[in-house]
Amino acid sequence: MPEYKAPLRDMQFVLHDVFHAEQLWETMPAMEDVNRELADAILEESAKINESLIAPLSQPGHEEGVTWADGVVTTPKGYPEAFKQLADGGWGGLSGAPEYGGQTMPKMLVLLFEEMLYSSNIAMGLYLTLTSGAALAIASHASEELKTKFLPNMYSAKWAGAMCLTESHAGTDLGMIRTKAVPQTDGSYSVSGTKIFITGGDHDLTENVIHLVLAKLPDAPAGSKGISLFLVPKFKVNDDGSLGEANGVSCGSIEHKMGINASATCVMNFDGAEGYLVGEINRGLQGMFTMMNYERLSVGIQGLSAAEAAYQWSSLYARERTQSRAPSGPVNKDGAADPIIVHPDVRRMLLTQKAYVEAGRAFAVYVGKQLDLSKFASGDAQERGAAMVELLTPVAKAFLTDKGLEGTVHGQQIFGGHGYVREWGMEQLVRDVRISQIYEGTNGIQALDLMGRKIAANGGQTLALLVAEMREFGASAAAVKGMDEFVNPLNEAVDNLESLAAYVLEQTKNGDANAIGAASVEFLHVMGFTLYTYMWAMMCKAVLSGDCAQGDAFAQAKLHTARFFVQRLLPQAKGLSESVRNGSASLMDIPEEAFI
Amino acid sequence: MPEYKAPLRDMQFVLHDVFHAEQLWETMPAMEDVNRELADAILEESAKINESLIAPLSQPGHEEGVTWADGVVTTPKGYPEAFKQLADGGWGGLSGAPEYGGQTMPKMLVLLFEEMLYSSNIAMGLYLTLTSGAALAIASHASEELKTKFLPNMYSAKWAGAMCLTESHAGTDLGMIRTKAVPQTDGSYSVSGTKIFITGGDHDLTENVIHLVLAKLPDAPAGSKGISLFLVPKFKVNDDGSLGEANGVSCGSIEHKMGINASATCVMNFDGAEGYLVGEINRGLQGMFTMMNYERLSVGIQGLSAAEAAYQWSSLYARERTQSRAPSGPVNKDGAADPIIVHPDVRRMLLTQKAYVEAGRAFAVYVGKQLDLSKFASGDAQERGAAMVELLTPVAKAFLTDKGLEGTVHGQQIFGGHGYVREWGMEQLVRDVRISQIYEGTNGIQALDLMGRKIAANGGQTLALLVAEMREFGASAAAVKGMDEFVNPLNEAVDNLESLAAYVLEQTKNGDANAIGAASVEFLHVMGFTLYTYMWAMMCKAVLSGDCAQGDAFAQAKLHTARFFVQRLLPQAKGLSESVRNGSASLMDIPEEAFI
Repeated sequence: MPEYKAPLRDMQFVLHDVFHAEQLWETMPAMEDVNRELADAILEESAKINESLIAPLSQPGHEEGVTWADGVVTTPKGYPEAFKQLADGGWGGLSGAPEYGGQTMPKMLVLLFEEMLYSSNIAMGLYLTLTSGAALAIASHASEELKTKFLPNMYSAKWAGAMCLTESHAGTDLGMIRTKAVPQTDGSYSVSGTKIFITGGDHDLTENVIHLVLAKLPDAPAGSKGISLFLVPKFKVNDDGSLGEANGVSCGSIEHKMGINASATCVMNFDGAEGYLVGEINRGLQGMFTMMNYERLSVGIQGLSAAEAAYQWSSLYARERTQSRAPSGPVNKDGAADPIIVHPDVRRMLLTQKAYVEAGRAFAVYVGKQLDLSKFASGDAQERGAAMVELLTPVAKAFLTDKGLEGTVHGQQIFGGHGYVREWGMEQLVRDVRISQIYEGTNGIQALDLMGRKIAANGGQTLALLVAEMREFGASAAAVKGMDEFVNPLNEAVDNLESLAAYVLEQTKNGDANAIGAASVEFLHVMGFTLYTYMWAMMCKAVLSGDCAQGDAFAQAKLHTARFFVQRLLPQAKGLSESVRNGSASLMDIPEEAFI
Repeated sequence: MPEYKAPLRDMQFVLHDVFHAEQLWETMPAMEDVNRELADAILEESAKINESLIAPLSQPGHEEGVTWADGVVTTPKGYPEAFKQLADGGWGGLSGAPEYGGQTMPKMLVLLFEEMLYSSNIAMGLYLTLTSGAALAIASHASEELKTKFLPNMYSAKWAGAMCLTESHAGTDLGMIRTKAVPQTDGSYSVSGTKIFITGGDHDLTENVIHLVLAKLPDAPAGSKGISLFLVPKFKVNDDGSLGEANGVSCGSIEHKMGINASATCVMNFDGAEGYLVGEINRGLQGMFTMMNYERLSVGIQGLSAAEAAYQWSSLYARERTQSRAPSGPVNKDGAADPIIVHPDVRRMLLTQKAYVEAGRAFAVYVGKQLDLSKFASGDAQERGAAMVELLTPVAKAFLTDKGLEGTVHGQQIFGGHGYVREWGMEQLVRDVRISQIYEGTNGIQALDLMGRKIAANGGQTLALLVAEMREFGASAAAVKGMDEFVNPLNEAVDNLESLAAYVLEQTKNGDANAIGAASVEFLHVMGFTLYTYMWAMMCKAVLSGDCAQGDAFAQAKLHTARFFVQRLLPQAKGLSESVRNGSASLMDIPEEAFI
C-alpha cells in the first residue's frame, strides 16, 4: 500500500489564493488570532500526524477489524495509542468553543484537517469527528451545567461522543423511534430503548462515551414533533468531574460491514440509563440540525478524501507500471513497454479523479466559508452565509461522496487485477467510501432535502442568490484574459440550472406531487456539476490573474485540468437535465406489481 | 439474505417471443435435437439446481473464503459436494462437442444457465465456466489425441480447467510473458514459470486441473508473435486415462481479494511441468481467441447476474420496508409509514436496475445468437454472425459489467444502512461484481478493442452492418401501432452512433494517434445505450405485435420499463457523445508531471 501525502500545496492554493481566507478572517472578531501563518502551521502539523501516525494504521485496521466479545468492543492494534496522540495534540478541539477549552478555528481550515484525517483512515477519523460533532450539539443546545461538565473532556478527546438516532424500524423516518425517556424526580430522565448503526457507540479508545440520544417522552406527540434529545454518558460523571458508576448503556453487538472495518458500528442498548435533556422537550430534531450541517459536510469530505488517496496512488502506479506502447509510438524506448500513463484512457481515468478531487476540495472550502460566515459574521453576511449553508450542504454531502465512489473505482481500475487484491489498498478505498453515500441521510434523502426543503419550499429564493453570485462572478471574470473557455461553460451551466429548477417548481405548482422526488437526484448532480464549473472558473481566475503562489507548473496544471473538466465531464450535466425534463410519469405510471 | 429466484418468464420471453429461437434452431443442422420444449426443460432444471443448491452456498462462501495451507487449496464448506452435483447433472458439458461427450446446446440457451449460475454464486460458477472455456479452446485447437484424452473428463467436470495467462509484469501486455516451454525429445514440452491471478488454478473440487498455459519457446520471436499455448495437467494422465504422477504444477499462494472470496485466485508455479502444445507454435494467442469471445460474454453475464440478484432483493425490500409517506399522501393508511416503493427516487433506482437488467439479458441472448450463427450456420449467415461476434463481444463484456456495478450499487442503496452490513447480502454483490470490470481484459481494454480493432481497423464496415440492421428494424417496426415512442429514440440513437464513429475515424485519419484511445470508453457506452435501445424496441415490438406469451401484466411492464429507459436513461448517451466530440487534446496536452 502506497504512502499518503497530504496535498498541502493544493490546500494552500484553495485557502489563500482562491478564497483569500486571511482577508475574510480579518473581518470576523472571533477569528482575530487566526492568520495565514497559523493556518499553514496547523496544516503542516496535521499533515505530519496524519501521514506518519494515522495512515499507516489504515490497512492493518481494515484486515483486523473491530471485535466484540462479552459486551466489550476492542479496536485494532495501535488504535488506542494513536487516538491518544490525536487527543493530546488537541485535534479534537479545533472547532470547540473557547470558554470550554476549544480552539475556535474556522471550518474552512478545520475541514482540511478532516480531509487529511479521512484520507489517512476514515475508520479512525470517525471516532474523532463524531466526538466533535456531538460536542457541537452540546455547545449549541445544552445547559451551562452540561457544557461545563462534558465539553472540556470532549474537546480534549479524553471522552468520545456518539450520535444515537437510528432504530431498526426507523432510519430515514425518525418520527417512528420508540426509545423512551421517562422524567425522574431529580430532573434527569430514564432512557430505555435500542439503537442500531451507532458509529463509535462503544470502543476502547477513551474512558467514557457521551451519547446523544433521540428519544420520546411518554406523552410526546406522534411523529417527528415528539422527539427530544438527551445526553447519556456511558459512565455517569460525578460533580467533581471524576467518573462514577456505569450507566445502563451497553453494546449488544457490532455489525460486520462492507468496509470501515476498524470503526465500531454498534447496537446500543439503553436500559433505564440516566440521561439529561439537551435543548427543549420535543425539539430534539432541531437540536440536531445545527450539528447536521457540519456532519454532512464532514461525510462529504470522506468522499473527497478517499478519492484523493485513490488519485495519489493510481497516479503513482500509472507512472511506474509499464505495459504496452503509447499509441503514437514508444516513449520509454530502452524498456520493454511504456508507463501506462501514456495511454489516453488511463489519462482519462486519472484526470477524472483529479478534476473531481480538486473541484471538490475547493467546493468543500467554499461551503466551509459559508459555515464560518453563518457562525462568525454578522448582519447580512451572516444571514446570507446561513442560507447558503442550508442550500449547499446536501449537495456537498451527496455529490462529494458520489464522486468519491466514482473516483475510487477509477483508481482501482487503473491498478487492473492488482486493484482487486487487498494488499494494494485500492479495494479498501472503494469499500470504505461506499458508506458515505448511505449514512448521515442517504444521498437520495439529501437530494430530496435540496429540491424540496431548500429550493421548492422557499420558491427557489436561496438558489436565486447562488445563481446571481455565479453570474456576477462570470461577468467580472470575463474581463480576465483567457477566461472565456471557462466562463462560457459556467454561464451556460448556470442558465441551465436556473431553468431546470424552474421546470421542477412549475411541475410541482401544477399539482405533480412526485415532481420533486422524480427530479431530485439528477437535479442535485446537475447542481454539483454547475458548482464544480464555478470552482474551476474561480481557480482558473486565480491562476490567470496571477494570484497563484504555487509556481507555473502547478498553475498550468490547473488550467489543463479545468479544460478537461469542462470539455469531457461537464457534458454529462446535459444528459441529466434532459432526464429531469422528461418528467415523473415514467417513474410513477408503472404499477407496483410490475416490480416483482 | 433473500432467496434467488430464476427469472424464467423473462428468459422465455426473450428466447422465444423476441428472438424466436426455435425457428432459428430449425435452420441449423447441428441443432436438430433442440427445440422449445427441451430448452424450457433445461431452463427449469437449471433454475432448480441453482436456486436450491448453488445460491444458498454463496453467502457462507463469502464469509468463509478459500484457504491455502502448505500448498493445498481448500474451498468453503459444501463446495466440493455441490460442484459434484453440478458435474453429475451434466452442467459442465452443455456446450461441448458431441464426439467427446458434450451436449452441443446453443449458446443462446447455455448463457441463460450461466446467468442463473452467476446470480446464485459467481465464485462457484467460475470453477465450472472456466472448465467449459478451457474445454472449448482444446476442442477448437488441440490434437485429436489431446481431445480424446482430456475433453470427456472436462465435459463431465470430473476434471476442471484453468487459463494461465497473466504474469506479474504482464497483464494487458501478454507479449512480455517469461514462462518458458522447452521442447523435449518425446514431443512434449517442459514448462517453467510463474503465473498470477489464476482463477481456479488449484482447488479441492476435482481430482485434476487442466491448465492452458501461455509460454514462449526458447527461440520464440519477441512480443505477442512468440507466444504458444500448452496444455499442462496438474496430474499427468496415463494412456488408459487414469491419473498418473504429479506434474511440477503447484499453487504458491492465493490472493485475498475484495470479493469472490470463494473463488481461488492462485499464484501458479510451473517447474519443469510436462506440457503439450495446443495449436501451432507461436500462435498461442490465436488459440485463445476462439475461447475469448465466449469467456468475455460469460464475464459480461456476471455483471447481468449480479444486477439481477440486486434487483430482485431490493425490489422485494422496497415493497416490505416501510418508512415515511408517499409524496401524494399515505398509501398504507393503517400502518405508521408507507412501503418505500412509493417514493419516486426509490422507483428510479429500481427501474434503472430493471431497465438495464432486462435489456442486458436480451442483449446477451442477441450476442449468443451471433455466436450460434458463427458456429452452426453456413455461408453468409455464418460469416455475418462471426463479424457481429467480433464487434459486439467487447460491448457485452464491458457494458454489461459497468451496468452490473451500477445496478448492484443502486440495489445496495435501497437497503440504506442495511445494504452496507454483510448479513443482508447486498454488499457481497457489489464486491463480487467489481472484478468483472477488470478481468478477462479490463473494460478500458475492451473499449480499445472495440474502437480500434473492431471498428477503425476495417473502416467501420462491421459497425455499418449493425447500423443498417437497426435502421431496417426501425423502419419495419414503425408500422406497428404504438412503436413510435420507441422507434424514434432508436433512430436518433443510431444516427448519433454512426456519426460519432465517423468523427473518431476522421480524427484518426487526420493523424491523431490518440483519437481512438481518447474516445473509446465513452464510445463503447454510447454503443451500449444504442444497443439497449434496440433491445427495448425489439421487446416492445414483440409486445405490441401480440407475440408476448407471458400475460398482459408482464407485457405492460415491458412497455413501462422501455419508456423509463428512453426517457430517463438514454439521454446520458448525449452527454457522452459530446465528450467524445470534444476530442483528445484535453487528455493529452497535460504533461505527465502535472499528475504528481
